[in-house]
Amino acid sequence: MKIKRNGRIGALIKILNDNPNKIFTLNYFTNKFNAAKSSISEDIVIAKKLMEDLKLGKIETIPGAAGGVKYIPLISKEDTKEILEDVCKKLSEPNRIIPGAFLYMADIIYNPNIVRKLGEIFATQFSGKKIDYVVTVETKGIPIALMTANALNVPLIILRRDSKVTEGSTVSINYLSGTTGKIQTMSISKRAINTGAKVIIIDDFMKAGGTAKGMIDMMKEFEATVVGIGVMIATKEPEEKVIKDYVPLLILDKVDEKNKLINIYANERLV
Amino acid sequence: MKIKRNGRIGALIKILNDNPNKIFTLNYFTNKFNAAKSSISEDIVIAKKLMEDLKLGKIETIPGAAGGVKYIPLISKEDTKEILEDVCKKLSEPNRIIPGAFLYMADIIYNPNIVRKLGEIFATQFSGKKIDYVVTVETKGIPIALMTANALNVPLIILRRDSKVTEGSTVSINYLSGTTGKIQTMSISKRAINTGAKVIIIDDFMKAGGTAKGMIDMMKEFEATVVGIGVMIATKEPEEKVIKDYVPLLILDKVDEKNKLINIYANERLV
Repeated sequence: MKIKRNGRIGALIKILNDNPNKIFTLNYFTNKFNAAKSSISEDIVIAKKLMEDLKLGKIETIPGAAGGVKYIPLISKEDTKEILEDVCKKLSEPNRIIPGAFLYMADIIYNPNIVRKLGEIFATQFSGKKIDYVVTVETKGIPIALMTANALNVPLIILRRDSKVTEGSTVSINYLSGTTGKIQTMSISKRAINTGAKVIIIDDFMKAGGTAKGMIDMMKEFEATVVGIGVMIATKEPEEKVIKDYVPLLILDKVDEKNKLINIYANERLV
Repeated sequence: MKIKRNGRIGALIKILNDNPNKIFTLNYFTNKFNAAKSSISEDIVIAKKLMEDLKLGKIETIPGAAGGVKYIPLISKEDTKEILEDVCKKLSEPNRIIPGAFLYMADIIYNPNIVRKLGEIFATQFSGKKIDYVVTVETKGIPIALMTANALNVPLIILRRDSKVTEGSTVSINYLSGTTGKIQTMSISKRAINTGAKVIIIDDFMKAGGTAKGMIDMMKEFEATVVGIGVMIATKEPEEKVIKDYVPLLILDKVDEKNKLINIYANERLV
């Protein structure tokens, strides 16, 4: 079947978009669309400019024998601002406050539309780094971490709170959770991570940073390098956290249970 | 900024594709692309035909005041076959066998590329049903369930193995897990699900069906109707499971620890 330029560009964008950060050879498209290499090259130039003009991410051509074309989802500063402010607005609804000054967030952190965008914001922040895995710990951070991994086209690693028999031999560590004030365990199958890998850590919430510190310690067991840490929400207090370099999307300043007030805002460095 | 037809179709497909099952008005595109309604209508006709010709899903126009256009990800039978057979091949690698005749699957069920496709296969299977939520239980089924929810454009509900203080008041039930032979608990915040909702249940693995049965019982607490159950892998034995109607993607016939043999195949009804 022969497809016209109109259609080729649409289909090319769809395929690249469905497979972020995956390299496709020009041959893949010449076969798929039954078109000459020169036509596909021109299609790519048009698609590239279009993505840039509309700020919908970046199409990159990679020269050489292992070359081809790939799509990098990049969220612009304006869109980041809009997305994060929208999430802040939702999180500021007074009826989210749960006794103990917690915030009910399940409807947001499990909403595919929202977490897909948050994942792309993280991918944008860590774009350009060589990353082998996205690492998170169960449960609440999984959707955001998965969408980050999807945008970066790398596998997700989920650290478990207990070791399951179906994982084979595991590595376990203990860590102090600042949120609960308790010693907790996390474990992972020995075969889950290649030695010497480069990883980013993604989680939904950070208070003192104990859980993130636990994940960093776990990565040391695999001689893995943590090249970035992203959290959806970091609390403003304590300002001095156990870990230093991390990228929060939102800062939670205050949950005032008595007056039903929530103060949460976007990380100013990102918007 | 005025965008030519070439570009408009590409951008339209990208936007629809990024937001499966979300309805966009024609006005949205006339504003975004600074183009006449008639031009956008023609673009949609071209995009629609293209998706059909390339079997990349379906673009649907909804008439009337609340109308517009949406993209429905539909995986063709051929693609379903290819995707499922590829997963079977991976799952048949002998070194996946863990003492106790379990299969190591974390690298597959947490791989965004794979689970995105499996989620779209589930969305295809349950397409046409009115669905308010996708429901799963932590942990291993979350990535597949999230991608299913993403393709269907509905929220994900994650049932927890224990009740967390940050969820507010919860509903808990006990159920018998056929895999572990133990009584287990699952719980969910009372506010997570609207009364009378229609849900589909998605999980990674089903042996006797006890966990799925537990999820069905939990849904009764919310007067919710289960309109479908999808599992990535169902074991062949026991053939008589606690639940009747479910859609497995793969059937696991045998894990022979001694001879290092795994027999797993795609559900014939889907391919």
